Amino acid sequence: MVAMGGGPEVPQQKGEKGRTHLLCVLPWPQKVSEKIIKEIQDEFPNLELQYVHENLEDPSQRLKIEVPEELYKRADIIATIKWLPPNASVIPNVELIQFFSAGSNHVTQHPIYKDSKIPLSTVSGIHGPQIAEWVIMMNLVHSHKYIYLYELQNKKEWEGITGRAVRDKVGQRVGILGYGSIGRQVARVAQAMGMDVIAYTASRRPTPESKKDNGFIVPGTGDPDGSIPSKWYSGLDKPSLHEFLKQELDLLVICVPLTKDTTHLLSTDEFAVLQQSNPNGTYVSNISRGKIIDQPALIKALETKQISGAALDVTDPEPLPSEDPLWSAPNCLITPHISGSTTVYSERAFQVLRENLRRRRDGCKLLNIVDRKRGY
Amino acid sequence: MVAMGGGPEVPQQKGEKGRTHLLCVLPWPQKVSEKIIKEIQDEFPNLELQYVHENLEDPSQRLKIEVPEELYKRADIIATIKWLPPNASVIPNVELIQFFSAGSNHVTQHPIYKDSKIPLSTVSGIHGPQIAEWVIMMNLVHSHKYIYLYELQNKKEWEGITGRAVRDKVGQRVGILGYGSIGRQVARVAQAMGMDVIAYTASRRPTPESKKDNGFIVPGTGDPDGSIPSKWYSGLDKPSLHEFLKQELDLLVICVPLTKDTTHLLSTDEFAVLQQSNPNGTYVSNISRGKIIDQPALIKALETKQISGAALDVTDPEPLPSEDPLWSAPNCLITPHISGSTTVYSERAFQVLRENLRRRRDGCKLLNIVDRKRGY
Repeated sequence: MVAMGGGPEVPQQKGEKGRTHLLCVLPWPQKVSEKIIKEIQDEFPNLELQYVHENLEDPSQRLKIEVPEELYKRADIIATIKWLPPNASVIPNVELIQFFSAGSNHVTQHPIYKDSKIPLSTVSGIHGPQIAEWVIMMNLVHSHKYIYLYELQNKKEWEGITGRAVRDKVGQRVGILGYGSIGRQVARVAQAMGMDVIAYTASRRPTPESKKDNGFIVPGTGDPDGSIPSKWYSGLDKPSLHEFLKQELDLLVICVPLTKDTTHLLSTDEFAVLQQSNPNGTYVSNISRGKIIDQPALIKALETKQISGAALDVTDPEPLPSEDPLWSAPNCLITPHISGSTTVYSERAFQVLRENLRRRRDGCKLLNIVDRKRGY
Repeated sequence: MVAMGGGPEVPQQKGEKGRTHLLCVLPWPQKVSEKIIKEIQDEFPNLELQYVHENLEDPSQRLKIEVPEELYKRADIIATIKWLPPNASVIPNVELIQFFSAGSNHVTQHPIYKDSKIPLSTVSGIHGPQIAEWVIMMNLVHSHKYIYLYELQNKKEWEGITGRAVRDKVGQRVGILGYGSIGRQVARVAQAMGMDVIAYTASRRPTPESKKDNGFIVPGTGDPDGSIPSKWYSGLDKPSLHEFLKQELDLLVICVPLTKDTTHLLSTDEFAVLQQSNPNGTYVSNISRGKIIDQPALIKALETKQISGAALDVTDPEPLPSEDPLWSAPNCLITPHISGSTTVYSERAFQVLRENLRRRRDGCKLLNIVDRKRGY
């Protein structure tokens, strides 16, 4: 952490002549991020930025990216996705490595991860709005029978009988399994549509403090205080999960990370619980990982109408083979793991970095710091 | 209005033995609405309900619905869509006619409309959630390239390059032309998605009081105080409209009523203004009436990419003939005037009636009362 103090206009910063050296090694040209980089430089006049374009598309660069040693030797902060210096001893000044990826799984075997204590931060949290929009869109496409309407337009036919039997979301209930940045933004939009929101988390959240989202939040989105859910469920055991699934859910959104505990978290028993609780049929949305759902059990649940439908951005395996029966299961919408892809990725990632620069300047706890033991 | 007072448990109501006679003449069986009718009867134990099923599907009934004279003669309140008694003199006790339609255009030539002063109320406001969902869905289908993703699933192909170039809604701006119950609910959801909302109304809304929504609001939806828009524009002249259209709109939602002032409100000039202000292209959504847009000008704007696309639930004319070029204009999504159709119509309409029963009981101003001169 940096000692505060310094001149009257610009807070003193570490490094030669009070400058902070930021080294960016990123897989897109600097031009892509020029607007936000300019904003950051205006906010931190003592920041000296070096930018190396790591061209991941070019196979010859993939393993051997050339970053001049003098750049990382004097760096105070590194922003990167994959590239890392060989070990911690060559980056004596580095106080923070800001990964521009949502996780750090890809570097857990690297000496800097295993053997150093350099704080590592991720950009976890930047996908909330994008993926929440996907969840809301897919649920509306189902409930408003948009596929039918689209085919009608293709036929240039004006006829709306089927399109009329639509139930809006007011008073319906969404259960959010995994109340992180994505689930919280789904909650925000669902609540605005008039839905009742209930949340499920692995650990209990009995106090206001425990309900808070302490990670990066895209400004104006999410549920920073965790005040949206009307009820909160938790646990790692089946009875706790079933208690949550029994709450007459109209929509179930899966946004828990994949671990051994969450593998096949939804299987035959769970689909039976959902059906018993809501005979009209819960709609299941998965934007996390395919393996969280027991896929043959899901296909059966769809075929027997235990659930009203499913929207899946993730499958098991990926890519989903063209002969897989999931492709044509009834009321099942599939997209090829694209819900988090966005044209504003770099801008959002730089926003996390900017927030960490602010916290570093102000002597506050850094954001999205990886717990090396927990792995995220 | 009813004099208050009465016994200790149930407030005194008008009519013989303090009973209120409610006559419902509605085009669906009573069973459809039994849950909400039960709730209303529980809340108003002095209410005596008579229900006549006006079968609009049966052509023989369409003009001559048999409602026994003794029913309307003693009625205090009538709930109806089309049926009316011949004139006001045969309904001496009626204090309120609650139309179960959003407007009252269909009865403006009836003696009760022209020659009586019986308060007429509509169920304007009940369509907000349903239609707002349509607007949000269609805009997301466009921005998330869902048609492309749907066709990909049809081909059982896992490939997502095109689907990746998506920009979420955070920081984007929606302009809402006509800030009534529908526009307010679009605003609520758009704000939750992180959008900036600006509003346009015919008359100025300079005070907090003038910004309020005084009509029926589905609980938990809309913008009752008019506090969501960051800026408010108004006027009936072209320069005022253009000032609004110049605000770099990413999404323009048309929800003004069709009048002679709003016919072809959006034409060649307006599309040019939109393009100049937002070269990336405004997305235009129309859920009001087809004639508000100059349709040949819209097709040209789509073909020349002056706007990024359009979602239309209404066209000019309707049904849209199969040979109309609008069907295949680029980036144009069309649905056959279904955005307001809902399976909870009767429930919502009875909610308006219930609210008026409460206001009548409490001596408050009734809701959604038609201004006979203004016509709505």
